[in-house]
Amino acid sequence: MTGRIDIGILGATGAVGQRMVQLLDGHPWFRIAEVAASERSSGKPYGEAANWYLPGGIPSEVRDLKVKGCDEKFESRVLFSGLDATVAGDIESRLRKAGHAISTNSRNHRMDPDVPLVIPEVNPEHLGAIPRQKKDHGGFIVSNPNCTVVGLTIPLAPLQAAFGIRQVVVVSMQASSGAGYPGVPSMDLIDNVIPHIPGEEQKIPTESLKILGRYADGGFHPAVFPISASVNRVPVLDGHTESIFVQLEKPARPEEVIETMERFHGIPQERKLPTAPEKPLVVFRQADRPQPRKDRDLGRGMTVSVGNVRQDEAFSVKFTSCSHNTIRGAAGAAILNAELLREEGYLE
Amino acid sequence: MTGRIDIGILGATGAVGQRMVQLLDGHPWFRIAEVAASERSSGKPYGEAANWYLPGGIPSEVRDLKVKGCDEKFESRVLFSGLDATVAGDIESRLRKAGHAISTNSRNHRMDPDVPLVIPEVNPEHLGAIPRQKKDHGGFIVSNPNCTVVGLTIPLAPLQAAFGIRQVVVVSMQASSGAGYPGVPSMDLIDNVIPHIPGEEQKIPTESLKILGRYADGGFHPAVFPISASVNRVPVLDGHTESIFVQLEKPARPEEVIETMERFHGIPQERKLPTAPEKPLVVFRQADRPQPRKDRDLGRGMTVSVGNVRQDEAFSVKFTSCSHNTIRGAAGAAILNAELLREEGYLE
Amino acid sequence: MTGRIDIGILGATGAVGQRMVQLLDGHPWFRIAEVAASERSSGKPYGEAANWYLPGGIPSEVRDLKVKGCDEKFESRVLFSGLDATVAGDIESRLRKAGHAISTNSRNHRMDPDVPLVIPEVNPEHLGAIPRQKKDHGGFIVSNPNCTVVGLTIPLAPLQAAFGIRQVVVVSMQASSGAGYPGVPSMDLIDNVIPHIPGEEQKIPTESLKILGRYADGGFHPAVFPISASVNRVPVLDGHTESIFVQLEKPARPEEVIETMERFHGIPQERKLPTAPEKPLVVFRQADRPQPRKDRDLGRGMTVSVGNVRQDEAFSVKFTSCSHNTIRGAAGAAILNAELLREEGYLE
Amino acid sequence: MTGRIDIGILGATGAVGQRMVQLLDGHPWFRIAEVAASERSSGKPYGEAANWYLPGGIPSEVRDLKVKGCDEKFESRVLFSGLDATVAGDIESRLRKAGHAISTNSRNHRMDPDVPLVIPEVNPEHLGAIPRQKKDHGGFIVSNPNCTVVGLTIPLAPLQAAFGIRQVVVVSMQASSGAGYPGVPSMDLIDNVIPHIPGEEQKIPTESLKILGRYADGGFHPAVFPISASVNRVPVLDGHTESIFVQLEKPARPEEVIETMERFHGIPQERKLPTAPEKPLVVFRQADRPQPRKDRDLGRGMTVSVGNVRQDEAFSVKFTSCSHNTIRGAAGAAILNAELLREEGYLE
Repeated sequence: MTGRIDIGILGATGAVGQRMVQLLDGHPWFRIAEVAASERSSGKPYGEAANWYLPGGIPSEVRDLKVKGCDEKFESRVLFSGLDATVAGDIESRLRKAGHAISTNSRNHRMDPDVPLVIPEVNPEHLGAIPRQKKDHGGFIVSNPNCTVVGLTIPLAPLQAAFGIRQVVVVSMQASSGAGYPGVPSMDLIDNVIPHIPGEEQKIPTESLKILGRYADGGFHPAVFPISASVNRVPVLDGHTESIFVQLEKPARPEEVIETMERFHGIPQERKLPTAPEKPLVVFRQADRPQPRKDRDLGRGMTVSVGNVRQDEAFSVKFTSCSHNTIRGAAGAAILNAELLREEGYLE
Repeated sequence: MTGRIDIGILGATGAVGQRMVQLLDGHPWFRIAEVAASERSSGKPYGEAANWYLPGGIPSEVRDLKVKGCDEKFESRVLFSGLDATVAGDIESRLRKAGHAISTNSRNHRMDPDVPLVIPEVNPEHLGAIPRQKKDHGGFIVSNPNCTVVGLTIPLAPLQAAFGIRQVVVVSMQASSGAGYPGVPSMDLIDNVIPHIPGEEQKIPTESLKILGRYADGGFHPAVFPISASVNRVPVLDGHTESIFVQLEKPARPEEVIETMERFHGIPQERKLPTAPEKPLVVFRQADRPQPRKDRDLGRGMTVSVGNVRQDEAFSVKFTSCSHNTIRGAAGAAILNAELLREEGYLE
Repeated sequence: MTGRIDIGILGATGAVGQRMVQLLDGHPWFRIAEVAASERSSGKPYGEAANWYLPGGIPSEVRDLKVKGCDEKFESRVLFSGLDATVAGDIESRLRKAGHAISTNSRNHRMDPDVPLVIPEVNPEHLGAIPRQKKDHGGFIVSNPNCTVVGLTIPLAPLQAAFGIRQVVVVSMQASSGAGYPGVPSMDLIDNVIPHIPGEEQKIPTESLKILGRYADGGFHPAVFPISASVNRVPVLDGHTESIFVQLEKPARPEEVIETMERFHGIPQERKLPTAPEKPLVVFRQADRPQPRKDRDLGRGMTVSVGNVRQDEAFSVKFTSCSHNTIRGAAGAAILNAELLREEGYLE
Repeated sequence: MTGRIDIGILGATGAVGQRMVQLLDGHPWFRIAEVAASERSSGKPYGEAANWYLPGGIPSEVRDLKVKGCDEKFESRVLFSGLDATVAGDIESRLRKAGHAISTNSRNHRMDPDVPLVIPEVNPEHLGAIPRQKKDHGGFIVSNPNCTVVGLTIPLAPLQAAFGIRQVVVVSMQASSGAGYPGVPSMDLIDNVIPHIPGEEQKIPTESLKILGRYADGGFHPAVFPISASVNRVPVLDGHTESIFVQLEKPARPEEVIETMERFHGIPQERKLPTAPEKPLVVFRQADRPQPRKDRDLGRGMTVSVGNVRQDEAFSVKFTSCSHNTIRGAAGAAILNAELLREEGYLE
């Protein structure tokens, strides 16, 4: 545990920030040196400021850290951001200007033309945009995608590489924790489905196509195929489930699709990054899996699972995917991105 | 209440049978004269044989009826069937041979080439197949569709008529009661989604296309367009929610689609059949409706609701539908079919 | 419907206010003439100001009423209050001074020495305190109790009358809607129980003993026996369930207790007040009833149900009670109180 | 891992049996050598016979074990039983006669006059009854209590020792998994509470008083004070919550009660038994804890948590307890009992 890099967490008391604190506890490369939150929490010890909602209690090495305001100066060069989108844009821009390397889960800069939107197994080469961003701004921002995009993009990536993709339809059944805390009132979710999440649907094609696109000639070139999305909130605590239909460019039988998915891996697996799951994608042969409560914790929440892969009359293949929305879909994604940054030398 | 037709209910103690008993209590045209169930219940008073799960208690005029075996003779010519599919096929065939007119919710005869599969607002002309069926078998069977098909077909019918349909994708989020009682264990549904329902997915295109097809020249001619379906079970008691994408033959803006849906009605509304809702289809303008808990009881469970009607990049239109799976999707459907039969003179 | 008394509703857009609007729609004695809410809503039509959460939509005769501020003047002499406790105290005091007759669900004045805390079947004679209150303040306030107190006090009342009560223990399992809207976050209630509700536990003995006490010599004399309470929030939408243990003064077998409860009724039943249920208390003979989802709507939400009445080693009797917390426990309670007021001549 | 004792699991495919398999995977003292279940499963590989419901998949060293019938001979002297009560009695008696040492979760022999009913931290001295049992029967049975009894008895034990107990009232809110699989239908538990569990209520005083009693003069002498219980099923997957009221012999302030509970420990902690939690009992200072979803996994499911310890008008103290019903309340309890047996030399 010697030689760990000191890091700071922005928005450390929120739902994503708490997950970051939990996942970074005992991390071999990073040490939580600073935690920051809104003015209301600033000055209090973290253990008092955070309304801790996760099982297992607040890690002891963080409990007594004094919470800073997000407008203060940070000693740590590397920052993780779980800030709410209402404030993340400006705070992250200011800290980038101050030279920080920021791994953020916030949506604000995801579609910026010079900010890589990265899933380490899928598009690590997008980090190539960092030197230019640094030159222009002093520091740099790397974003991870929206939680729903993760459960779609990770299974699509190997299919795109092997067969090409012509069209995608995705319907999500998203967990309560995706809305943050306090989020969705229980009166709205007991015995109910809410068939709408403000602002969510639009992000799915936009972010997915940026990730599945190329970085070349100093710019991002998004993939070009239609993604039709419809999003729903269901009475599940953690774990987004998605029904996905894919039209491939080249014909493929379900069994080939399964094998292609099962072979999928990337730099995190090859270099054994600390937060990397053994497999980024597992495929169930049972028709009734994956299920969020049973499968969200696979690979300590970093493995996306797929199942019920089958033929469809109008599409090449259809299947279900499931991913842990606050781990692989948020806090764990930002941490894996930072691990990739260090591995690739961007934190030196 | 004079002159009511005596009817019998097959499978009267099951989940659908109980709904039939509830909905027929005080019905102006039909009077429950006989209730039948499996051998285990046979001989007991209904109030003792039925493990009544609905709010409000067992209607007093049924409580003391002695439960018959399904293999006995029935006095009532008109029978409703809520039988389980494992036994429905043979029992219904036998009773048809004995001359009964059977309105059934069971799936067994739905795809028979001489059995009408009917939603009264959508394809009442399919009843034209009855005289031939009677001639061949003595009595006749009329089926209503699977609960998920109802929430899809009722919104599609006016779109097909106005614009033509080229392709449909539907993802369902189905209620627990759709699996009957005891059905899905609570251990499987708390904090969870089950992305599979055995045998369900295949019925969606098959039954929908039969209903949306024509009856002509003494036969059924199903509609011809692909319907891609994926089904899920969610922690909701009653009310199936469906995310639907439709490619139309003729271009149409969402507002035209909404207006077309809002104008939709059929014989049940025109003739004011007792179980007919004022409107078979209502459209919400809010993006976050319909929701099963809030909207399943519209029109006493007989109205299908639609909302969040919007454009899609790859489809002409996408929207959410919601329908009460044990009323409009099962017991109420069978009763409305029987009302249509009487109205059209088939019970004379 | 002629000759209805115009009434106003304070806090009309909140959870209790919405129930008042719903229950007063089409009321034979009262007509909603004014609706008031916080400044934020003031000036808007009710249909726009209220985030309506109940099934069935906003009653048409209220939808277009312009929402007033609670600090404005009211034309209607009779006011219903579903105000939040943070503001109810002052607003109700001011309006009482202005001469209004106020039937309130808010807790602020419940324990005032001159304000009757009334359940019409239990302690209608407490209204005797009104003339003095009127003399002192101009108008008057009548309160209904906390939702949990209702499900306890109604079953206790006949036992107190018949056998005397020496000691009570009650553990509640309360519904989400008891916390108002937005109330309890779904992240806290999925797959969970919260064993604490701030401020709730203390109200149970205090309010119950006032109600079960006497009004005599111009003052309230609370009943004197210990009530030990422990409160919990469970994942149920509506309907509070309570496990109750009672030590009686005189010995009684469970069957006698049941018969005593079944005979219980009061002025609302005798005079057939519009909102009165046929029976204020029903007793199930099954051990596994009442259950909130199945039994909360008995008597249109105005009947308290009791079941599993049995002997205990240390107490004379123990049983389960269930009551609809936003109807008999809030909005319906305030309306029944107002009906009693009119019946007894206090609104003339 | 050398020198592990081979063990067999009876009822290995059921809910408790699966937990036993999960918890014994990689156990330092015991190795799963045999798995047995009903005839239906017999002969199949475990991975095929078990409908595995736990997260994380079937441990690889068990997946391929062939399932035996419970009527076969067992090589392993030590057996764990998670058998259903309908069959456990006879099977366990037969295997005891064959000389096996059986640690069982089944209720059948719990109240036998020569069978110790043991919680290792509470009454390890009850194992003193084993030699006599062995002499009479060949082998011996040790039982662990009902899941609800665990969450009551562990907090009561230190209070009994320090202050004496005069009276207890307990109301449980029990998890779905307590009923085994398939257990409670989801149609009964969505948005609902079931205020009854057949046969459960009676076990609470009987088993608790045996455990809290003494073993002396070759017999069990139960504790003598009234325990009034009322049990409920709530929509929670795992973790029983209990509202408990205690009248002590000697007066004690809540703070003294808390300190007494916090000091509580026993042989499992002193000898660091493999499945022992660091603390058998933790006390939360927050009023709104413990909560089943957040606290059931404390001490890997072996720690009982208590909170909201406060004074009551009629009782010395009241508080909430929470325990993992299938770990500390079933499978983990049987394993800890077996570890105690080995530690105390009963497996030699």
